[in-house]
Amino acid sequence: MEQTVSYIQAKDGALWLTEDERENLKISYRIKEIVHSEVSPFQHVTILDSYDFGRMLVLDGVVQTTSMDGFIYNEMISHIPLRFHPNPKRVLIIGGGDCGAAREVAKYENVEQIDMVELDETVVRLCKEHLPEVSGNLSDPRVRFIYNDGVAYVKDYENYYDIIIVDSSDPVGPAEQLFELDFYRNLHRALKEDGIMVCQSQSPVFHADIMGQSHQHIQSLFPVTKVYTAVVPTYPGGMWSFTMGSKRYDKPVESQPSGMETKYVNENIVEACFQLPEFMIQKLRI
Amino acid sequence: MEQTVSYIQAKDGALWLTEDERENLKISYRIKEIVHSEVSPFQHVTILDSYDFGRMLVLDGVVQTTSMDGFIYNEMISHIPLRFHPNPKRVLIIGGGDCGAAREVAKYENVEQIDMVELDETVVRLCKEHLPEVSGNLSDPRVRFIYNDGVAYVKDYENYYDIIIVDSSDPVGPAEQLFELDFYRNLHRALKEDGIMVCQSQSPVFHADIMGQSHQHIQSLFPVTKVYTAVVPTYPGGMWSFTMGSKRYDKPVESQPSGMETKYVNENIVEACFQLPEFMIQKLRI
Repeated sequence: MEQTVSYIQAKDGALWLTEDERENLKISYRIKEIVHSEVSPFQHVTILDSYDFGRMLVLDGVVQTTSMDGFIYNEMISHIPLRFHPNPKRVLIIGGGDCGAAREVAKYENVEQIDMVELDETVVRLCKEHLPEVSGNLSDPRVRFIYNDGVAYVKDYENYYDIIIVDSSDPVGPAEQLFELDFYRNLHRALKEDGIMVCQSQSPVFHADIMGQSHQHIQSLFPVTKVYTAVVPTYPGGMWSFTMGSKRYDKPVESQPSGMETKYVNENIVEACFQLPEFMIQKLRI
Repeated sequence: MEQTVSYIQAKDGALWLTEDERENLKISYRIKEIVHSEVSPFQHVTILDSYDFGRMLVLDGVVQTTSMDGFIYNEMISHIPLRFHPNPKRVLIIGGGDCGAAREVAKYENVEQIDMVELDETVVRLCKEHLPEVSGNLSDPRVRFIYNDGVAYVKDYENYYDIIIVDSSDPVGPAEQLFELDFYRNLHRALKEDGIMVCQSQSPVFHADIMGQSHQHIQSLFPVTKVYTAVVPTYPGGMWSFTMGSKRYDKPVESQPSGMETKYVNENIVEACFQLPEFMIQKLRI
């Protein structure tokens, strides 16, 4: 237990979580309570209750999602590719243990099957139990939870999925493979002839090289490659990039189904998110 | 001297600046060097050299701008109103002591007069000397530096300016008046019959009430009111709002002059920045 919470310190009678992922920039969140903390076979999984961001999922000391701003990332990684596809039936989510992406995908009634391949069952279990604002306490029968390595899983599929969402953590340790060309090649094969993939491609400010590399890889495989951004307050730098590879569709083909509730995405954001600032265009050479 | 740098601590042989502005969220920057620190009649003014963001202007312990990301804020507060006006000749900047807004305005050749009313001469002097990446070492003869209180200054003008840019710090202490209806009323009077004003209206995430209040005030005075956003990595939450009040023009009327160099703004951003996420639309009731 002690090891799990080494990144939490008491100071002036208050608890603080300090993220340690960057050498020269530290973000500290004041914590009300450590809701749950456990060591899974893969990582330290902690659910905290914070003052500014509500409940937080913390993996190995790094904030992954919060009840306050989790909707932004999860809506943006899900709705954008879904809105580009006229009839998405089978959706694969690789990673996404907080269940937020699955929750967003499940808002689309024409989707028939949502396969979620997550390495760590503990993350899913704890998010369902302690982070319902993000996970939506997901019990949709279309969602199939597969506890497996996404890199290995996807190798067995060909011409099968309409949409693949790669909701990975940062490219260190096991997630590193999720940023490599071989993996994207396997995604391409697992997609149908008009399929679409999307991945989170890191911060345009702090990880411009990773973003550029993801873009190059995807561009070498898919005829349509598009980068978009969203603001994620709890990620360093605030701005986050997503890269989409599409075999056919190159613009939103569906309008947002009426009655669908979202807190970030709307008709205008679906178009505007692709308008990149000049420094990103120069970096990506697009 | 000691008092000026109380928010800088040595830890494990390294220097860290920790911003103290929010009670429950602290951002710490690793510092290479304190370049200059002095107490002005108004505040503690410090120029630091940081690892992740280069040179920084820090006022009373709060990061105002950096050589790494200062261009985002300064381009967005300047180019957007200028692009809505077909022929801006007289521009007033209230605040903006880092000179970054003045530098951006000076890129427009048809602008004849740039009045910068800044309370604190020390900020201007130190930014010119130690922060040339932001200030551009401004020596444009069109720029007139007026060291005065912007709230008082603007009362003496009527039907005079084409554009007024309110580049204020946060609404605590003296800057508080820059968020009040009376001040906006005076701006309205100081503008010509087709004039445009813009102000930074804080974080949509952390200061949604201030943003909403600025919007209401401006909307009560100007026939055209528009809110736009940009990402500022060194501001808490990453996302920042700007509110524009226009007496006549309601869309960009000029294309970006050819040969003008920008790092954030481009033709598409000028339109896309007004597309707000759903939670902002709901908050602003627009």
